[in-house]
Amino acid sequence: MTSSDPRFSGRVTLPVEEGMDDELAAIIDRLGADAVRNSDGTWLPKIVSNLGTKVYSTRFCARGDEAWALDHLDEHVSLYLCSDRVPALEDGPLEIHIMRGFFAEQVRPDTDVDVKRWWQVRDRTTDEVIDDWTVSGEGADCVVAVPATAGHVYTVAFLAAQLWDTTQMYNYTTNHWENDPTRSKEHPFDVVHPATWNHVQESLSEWLDAHPEVDVVRFTTFFYHFTLYFNEQAKEKFVDWFGYSASVSVPLMEAFEAETGWQINPEDFIDAGYHNSSFRPPSQFFLAWIDFVNRFVTDRVRRLVEICHDKGREAMMFLGDNWIGTEPYGELFATTGLDAVVGSVGSSATCRMISDIPGVHYTEGRFLPYFFPDVFNDEGDPVGEANTSWVQARRAIVRKPLDRIGYGGYLSLANQYPEFMERIEQICQEFRDIWERSGGKTARTAPFRIGILNCWGARRTWMSHMVAHALYYKQAAPYLGVVEALAGLPFDIDWLDFDDIRDGVPEGIGVLINTGSAGTAFSGAQEWTDVTVQAAVRTFVARGGGFIGVGDPTYWPGDGACFRLSDVLGVDREIGWSLSTDRYPNVVDSHFITDGLALEVGPVAPEIVPVCDDTEVLELDDGSIHAAVHTLGKGRAVYLAGLPYTVDNSRLLHRAIWWAAGRDDEFADQFIADDPRVETACYDEAGLLLVTNLSFDEVTTTISGLDDEVTLAPAGSAWINISA
Amino acid sequence: MTSSDPRFSGRVTLPVEEGMDDELAAIIDRLGADAVRNSDGTWLPKIVSNLGTKVYSTRFCARGDEAWALDHLDEHVSLYLCSDRVPALEDGPLEIHIMRGFFAEQVRPDTDVDVKRWWQVRDRTTDEVIDDWTVSGEGADCVVAVPATAGHVYTVAFLAAQLWDTTQMYNYTTNHWENDPTRSKEHPFDVVHPATWNHVQESLSEWLDAHPEVDVVRFTTFFYHFTLYFNEQAKEKFVDWFGYSASVSVPLMEAFEAETGWQINPEDFIDAGYHNSSFRPPSQFFLAWIDFVNRFVTDRVRRLVEICHDKGREAMMFLGDNWIGTEPYGELFATTGLDAVVGSVGSSATCRMISDIPGVHYTEGRFLPYFFPDVFNDEGDPVGEANTSWVQARRAIVRKPLDRIGYGGYLSLANQYPEFMERIEQICQEFRDIWERSGGKTARTAPFRIGILNCWGARRTWMSHMVAHALYYKQAAPYLGVVEALAGLPFDIDWLDFDDIRDGVPEGIGVLINTGSAGTAFSGAQEWTDVTVQAAVRTFVARGGGFIGVGDPTYWPGDGACFRLSDVLGVDREIGWSLSTDRYPNVVDSHFITDGLALEVGPVAPEIVPVCDDTEVLELDDGSIHAAVHTLGKGRAVYLAGLPYTVDNSRLLHRAIWWAAGRDDEFADQFIADDPRVETACYDEAGLLLVTNLSFDEVTTTISGLDDEVTLAPAGSAWINISA
Repeated sequence: MTSSDPRFSGRVTLPVEEGMDDELAAIIDRLGADAVRNSDGTWLPKIVSNLGTKVYSTRFCARGDEAWALDHLDEHVSLYLCSDRVPALEDGPLEIHIMRGFFAEQVRPDTDVDVKRWWQVRDRTTDEVIDDWTVSGEGADCVVAVPATAGHVYTVAFLAAQLWDTTQMYNYTTNHWENDPTRSKEHPFDVVHPATWNHVQESLSEWLDAHPEVDVVRFTTFFYHFTLYFNEQAKEKFVDWFGYSASVSVPLMEAFEAETGWQINPEDFIDAGYHNSSFRPPSQFFLAWIDFVNRFVTDRVRRLVEICHDKGREAMMFLGDNWIGTEPYGELFATTGLDAVVGSVGSSATCRMISDIPGVHYTEGRFLPYFFPDVFNDEGDPVGEANTSWVQARRAIVRKPLDRIGYGGYLSLANQYPEFMERIEQICQEFRDIWERSGGKTARTAPFRIGILNCWGARRTWMSHMVAHALYYKQAAPYLGVVEALAGLPFDIDWLDFDDIRDGVPEGIGVLINTGSAGTAFSGAQEWTDVTVQAAVRTFVARGGGFIGVGDPTYWPGDGACFRLSDVLGVDREIGWSLSTDRYPNVVDSHFITDGLALEVGPVAPEIVPVCDDTEVLELDDGSIHAAVHTLGKGRAVYLAGLPYTVDNSRLLHRAIWWAAGRDDEFADQFIADDPRVETACYDEAGLLLVTNLSFDEVTTTISGLDDEVTLAPAGSAWINISA
Repeated sequence: MTSSDPRFSGRVTLPVEEGMDDELAAIIDRLGADAVRNSDGTWLPKIVSNLGTKVYSTRFCARGDEAWALDHLDEHVSLYLCSDRVPALEDGPLEIHIMRGFFAEQVRPDTDVDVKRWWQVRDRTTDEVIDDWTVSGEGADCVVAVPATAGHVYTVAFLAAQLWDTTQMYNYTTNHWENDPTRSKEHPFDVVHPATWNHVQESLSEWLDAHPEVDVVRFTTFFYHFTLYFNEQAKEKFVDWFGYSASVSVPLMEAFEAETGWQINPEDFIDAGYHNSSFRPPSQFFLAWIDFVNRFVTDRVRRLVEICHDKGREAMMFLGDNWIGTEPYGELFATTGLDAVVGSVGSSATCRMISDIPGVHYTEGRFLPYFFPDVFNDEGDPVGEANTSWVQARRAIVRKPLDRIGYGGYLSLANQYPEFMERIEQICQEFRDIWERSGGKTARTAPFRIGILNCWGARRTWMSHMVAHALYYKQAAPYLGVVEALAGLPFDIDWLDFDDIRDGVPEGIGVLINTGSAGTAFSGAQEWTDVTVQAAVRTFVARGGGFIGVGDPTYWPGDGACFRLSDVLGVDREIGWSLSTDRYPNVVDSHFITDGLALEVGPVAPEIVPVCDDTEVLELDDGSIHAAVHTLGKGRAVYLAGLPYTVDNSRLLHRAIWWAAGRDDEFADQFIADDPRVETACYDEAGLLLVTNLSFDEVTTTISGLDDEVTLAPAGSAWINISA
């Protein structure tokens, strides 16, 4: 075994830092790391060039140069904010303290802009714009006086200057940098301003020259942070990992107007206070704004990549922090020239979000836990978190492998936990084994494709139903679970928006899935009022296609149905309008889909009722349907009330897909473990079957197509020869 | 004790029948009955004139004369029905079997009408009317052939002749009259036809002449049954106690069009399949149709009452079965001249529904259980049902007394249950005691009025949130509970519709209540988009009024809120659009409203979140608010996620009202029992307090304002002297 044998080393990136020179070589050898990096708040040690690894270095483009930021405070990035909803109790002037509820250290009302153009006062009761208002005071004391009518509610939309980068704020707070006099609170700056843009380019160039030891520039990330702001107690007030409200500036908006002809209304950003959350069906404006920012960001990213390439370095993007505008699944992404993308793996879906990105040379997953004191402490469970992270990632990796894995944070901290270091050593080796034995081929998938249908389509590949990156939201979990399950199941997936199906469901799709809560972009909202959409899906099913709806599929009440395809699904949501209709659910004793599995639907609204005589109910809870199937013409439909990720639910979805496709008789040919805690990946070319245990118990199971039982250690895996 | 002493006899009606002449006098004496009646399917005994009581006799006006019905089958009542929603799988003719799912013994497609005028084929996908269709076949084999487009869904609205009166069908089935050759299935007939109308008048007149023993004609009821139809297995398919779809005929519709100028569209009745359920915000058409049928029915009822009066008899209406069009809370009702209304008491609310009817000389409650074999059998619990019925009714009676009570069904059956007879003897006496001791005065109410705000207002006084009469619907129970609680609480109540408040909440209202699920007529639906409505309620609260919202008050998403008065309530429903906003519910340790009470919210949708910093959360369940309070200006608002009727919930509402009114400091002056199972009614003029036990346990409790504890037997009551 040598460190250059690809079976035992490589594909792993390790965070390093100053002050542990004596231990570094041994740790690198042990983990088989072939690259090292620094993290936010750490610096590469001087010996980095002697470690025999590639060297990544973090690089910020919108913060981290506080001297520049302080000299150019007017080149800040802005944020569109909306005041509280303030009711007028009497007729007459109403004073709205617009900074009420916001954190004055993070944002400052920007009264330097043309406030009558870029701010807006709205009567939310009449939905009218109010013109005759005045602004006074500054910062936290800023007040807008509105001529008000008693009983109406008013809001003020305003532009705020960002004073503190929000990820740096998180790192600063988590690591108690307030006790470190060398640390400052970093102001973000905006490359839309020519001086700043020139400075960013020049300083990158100079920095590269000054750091010949750096092989890979790890951009963390580029120019615009996702939307995140805080309340008066510095607690998180709003977070949207996909939000475009923190990439706003007057020059950028003016450029948008000039290019598109659109006349921006502040309400376009405010969106009644919802800030174009990705759960909102996207407005025409918002899609145009994303496209515009994407073009702007892509052009500037391309230039920075060129600088790196010109100096013989690779350029890697961290998919996080200031990733807004890069749109990794957009058509422009490959034109940036980026060599690689690295991202945090918090689940199977976030792993696929990274590994599926097209147009880059390689992808890398930064595994959890991050080596920070919030996990590495006496109460924390670093080994447990590493195991969970690995089991989630492994499901995804066997479907579409990451090229590399790595960790981040303080290595000196993690190195104080020997069990943890031992465990990640095993994980690194298990990851390399998958590459080695599969020969770099992906595992076998079903002979038909899956279409996931929502308002975002391919643009938000593996990004649906998320609010903050990989964080649990109970309201989204019953739908995100579908995505999480699919990320580790052997299917080829197309992410479709409604334009993709108006002329018919694309060829090759065997099963279409629509999942989400009522009225959201993910279930589709008003799109289901489109006749061509309804007809496309109905005829797709009638001619033999499968349709799986989870939660409130096709929901938009009208024409006598809440689920517009209630006749396909055989069920509908009862919202109180049809209580007069008696329901007689036909509960069947058993079904292929639920065979031996415990369905858990999560916290979903009740009252799903049968609306067709031939609807078969697979599970009924207090009169409300949790699972049902229905046939229409030659096709089949499956309804599930919710599907948070569990091993049983994932297997149930796996079975439901084959059933909906009308090919349930072929399911046993897919090397299916009898125990749903065990998954398999079939590498036909290599003649190998990878069998993985998703649980932390030892599991013994039979597998269809194999003669012998298989026993797997907790979270373990086994390779089985299946060649003839 | 003599039978003429009003302290010990009177105010009670007993069902009698043939075949028990020897026992009748003793039973009448024992219960203190002063009136007897027959029931559907029983006949008054010959000795009825010698019993010393008033004699009621049932009388039907739309059925029960089968000879006439069979001779005039074309004078049937019709029903507007809607076929299944049928998807077209391919382009071309689509055959819709319109009777699929309907009971051919109850209804027959009426192909004798101008089907192109009164039937309608609709493409539910495009919401377009289809013209080029044909009808063939008859009865159960009726088929409509539609030129269809693949992927679209079609329905056929059709008029059906009613072949079997639905209440008689229920009685027939329940009592197994199919085994009795003297019974026939009764066809309903329609007084809109002149011949039938003349016959109904003449036969009433003749019948009165032939039955001089009858003092009171108990009409059961008049002309039109509420909407009720059955499926192919003769199981109930649709029931709406307030439904006007079974009072339809071509002559009536033509008269409506002539009088109002309205051009009827079959869709006006079909309402996308919801049949104008009272949970649907009423359409302009539907309100006009109700008014028209109400005028038509009132005119004819008045004529029948005149016939009774002319012959020296009283006319009593049974509020049930064919009560449609009588509108007891409409302005015309008093003009019918009816002497009395009798109705079935299934709850406190249905008791008030009867006792509050204005414009009649007296009201009578028919208590449960009905003396039918579905309760009086070895498994049944007649005593338990009598107790439950009495405790529910007594709460209402102490607020607004019925003038009389009574029973129905087969006395010979009930008389086989001696414990039951003993219990109803006690109940009859306890009822008389309330009249005797209160001196006929109502108990003290709060010094401010309650307004219940929904789309129906006074027209559906005590009739909100009901589907079938007093039956439990879990989806409505969390809101009906508010009405049920109020029916027994000491408040004066105004039932308001939105027109009643557009110019401001009426004087005298202390607390306004809006209760119901999202999008229903009871929460108000689109009415909340009306600026005048919003402003009226906000200013009412700002100036000191109270607002209590239960479930989805003011719900209609728009302008950045789901509850349009979220700023008043301090809470909103999270429907997935604002998951990016962090919520920090401020849960308070204790509050006047919930003091010592266990709130039960019932099956309601989760995700109620705080939206104001000063919202105080009284109860939080898995992150969703069950109870919260908020102040606005001088007023107060209370939010409750649901309030099915329980003694704790009723007390909680009682406290919430006084708190919302800003008069919680006066609450202890109201003789409040410490134990919520005990209620009090204060008769100031008589100087008496009636203390009632709502439970079936013995209860000992203190009562504010009284020195001594009170102990009550299970379901018992006590009179306490409170005069100075």
